[in-house]
Amino acid sequence: MPYKTRLTVRFGDVDKAGIVYFPRIFHYMHIAQEDFFAEYVGVPYHQLIEKEGIGFPTVSDATDFVGVIRYGDVLEITVFISRIGASSATFEFRLHRQATGELLARAAQVKVAVDVQTWQKVLIPDRLRQSFASCQEH
Amino acid sequence: MPYKTRLTVRFGDVDKAGIVYFPRIFHYMHIAQEDFFAEYVGVPYHQLIEKEGIGFPTVSDATDFVGVIRYGDVLEITVFISRIGASSATFEFRLHRQATGELLARAAQVKVAVDVQTWQKVLIPDRLRQSFASCQEH
Amino acid sequence: MPYKTRLTVRFGDVDKAGIVYFPRIFHYMHIAQEDFFAEYVGVPYHQLIEKEGIGFPTVSDATDFVGVIRYGDVLEITVFISRIGASSATFEFRLHRQATGELLARAAQVKVAVDVQTWQKVLIPDRLRQSFASCQEH
Amino acid sequence: MPYKTRLTVRFGDVDKAGIVYFPRIFHYMHIAQEDFFAEYVGVPYHQLIEKEGIGFPTVSDATDFVGVIRYGDVLEITVFISRIGASSATFEFRLHRQATGELLARAAQVKVAVDVQTWQKVLIPDRLRQSFASCQEH
Repeated sequence: MPYKTRLTVRFGDVDKAGIVYFPRIFHYMHIAQEDFFAEYVGVPYHQLIEKEGIGFPTVSDATDFVGVIRYGDVLEITVFISRIGASSATFEFRLHRQATGELLARAAQVKVAVDVQTWQKVLIPDRLRQSFASCQEH
Repeated sequence: MPYKTRLTVRFGDVDKAGIVYFPRIFHYMHIAQEDFFAEYVGVPYHQLIEKEGIGFPTVSDATDFVGVIRYGDVLEITVFISRIGASSATFEFRLHRQATGELLARAAQVKVAVDVQTWQKVLIPDRLRQSFASCQEH
Repeated sequence: MPYKTRLTVRFGDVDKAGIVYFPRIFHYMHIAQEDFFAEYVGVPYHQLIEKEGIGFPTVSDATDFVGVIRYGDVLEITVFISRIGASSATFEFRLHRQATGELLARAAQVKVAVDVQTWQKVLIPDRLRQSFASCQEH
Repeated sequence: MPYKTRLTVRFGDVDKAGIVYFPRIFHYMHIAQEDFFAEYVGVPYHQLIEKEGIGFPTVSDATDFVGVIRYGDVLEITVFISRIGASSATFEFRLHRQATGELLARAAQVKVAVDVQTWQKVLIPDRLRQSFASCQEH
C-alpha cells in the first residue's frame, strides 16, 4: 500500500506570481519522505542519519507539475516505491488537492543509500528494504 | 552562446546531512533564470510579470544531481535554451563548482508562457523568442 | 486562553552548524500565526487576505533565542496577544520542546492591520478585535 | 567603518501579500553577516566553523521593519558592531533600498561565540575581536 500524508500550503510558500514557488514543491515532497520514514518505515529520518549513519540523498528527479498550487490549499501527498536496487530506490510522489482530488504534481526521484560520514553508497539495510518493498502503488 | 551566472552557497542552504538541501538547488536554478532574464534577455523577470503580465511557470523537470554541493562552494550556473515551441521552451541548467570545474547538477525544465491574470498559456512574444533562440548550448 | 499549535522540525531546516537556521524560527512563528487565524479566530489567513483584503504585516520583532532547536524536535508553539491598539496588535510567541517542556524561544511582534491593496493601515475589524482580546496569556 | 554589501530580492522571496516574507529578511541579514566575515573579517564563515570550530549563533533579535520590500528591489545592507563583550557581540544591520536610499529595516542581534562541538560559549578570538572593534557605525 502507498503511504499518504497531508500538508497545508503556507503564506510564505507562494511567489510573485501568486502560486507556490516550484522549488518549495520539492520541499513538500521531502517532508512527505520524512513522514514516510517516521510513520511507515518506523524509523524517524533523523534517527536514521544520527544513529545508523545512513542517508538517502536524491540523485535524480523527474517531475510533472500538472496543476497550480495556491495558498490555502491542503495537499494530500502519496508516497510509494516503484523500484528497489542494491543501494538505490525510486521514490514516487503524487500531490493532490485534498478538496477536489485533482492531481497537481507527480514525481519520481532516485535516492541512494549512503554512509553520511564517507558519503559512499551502501547496501540498503534489510529492514528498510522490506519496508520499501511493501510500499507499492497498488 | 549560453548564459553564465555565479552564486555562493549559503550557511542556511545545507541540511542535516551537511550538504545543500536538494530543493534549494531548484531555488538556485530559478535565481539563475532570473539573472538570465535581467542580463541576457534584457527584461528583468519582475517587469515581465508586472508590466507585460507574462510569467514562465515550470511544467516539468528532469534533473541529475551528479556531485555533492557544500557550504562554501561557489557555483557557476550555465543557462541555455534547448527547444522553443509556440508557447513553451526548455531551459537547461548546468551547475559547476567554480573552484574545480566539476559538474554538480544538470537539469532540463519546460517552462510555459502564461498570462499571469488568467493563467492561460500565450504565445512567446517575438522579442523573447529571438533572445531564447540565440541562447543555445554552442 | 492562549492558542497552542504543534510543529515538527524538518530535515531542511537546519544550517551548517547542525541546529535550526534562526530565520526559519520566524517562519515557524508565522505558521503558528496562520494556524491561530484558522483555528482560534476562525478566519483562515488566506481568506482574510483574499476576501476581506486585510493583512497583518510585522512591523517590529523582539525575540530571545533561549535554547537550541534541533532536527527531530517537535515544537509546541503558544500564541497570545499582549496588546491591542486601534490598528495594531502585539503577538507573543513561546516555543517549547514538546518532549521536555523546555522553553526555546520567546518573541513579541507588533503587527499592523493594512489594506492589502493600498498598503495603508486600517482599524482592526471588531470580530478580530474580540477574538484577539480573548487570547491573553492567562 | 561599517561594512556594506548588496543583495537582489528574488522571485521566491515574496509572500501571498506580494511583499518580501518577513522571515526572509532575517535570511538577508545572515547573508550579509556571511559576506561580512568573508570580506571584512577575512575569514569565510564556513572556514570559521569547519577549521576553527567556532560559530556565532544569534541569541536575541530586535528589528524594526520600516518600509515595504518588493520583488525587484536591490538592497544595500550595512553591517556594524555596536558592542563587544567577552564572548558576545551585537551585530547591527541596516537595509536600504538601493534605488532610493530609503531605510527599510534596522536590526540589532546579539551573537555569542560558541564551540560548535560542545555548543559552549568561548571567548571571541583576538583576531576577530580586533576586526569587530574596527567595524563601528562611524
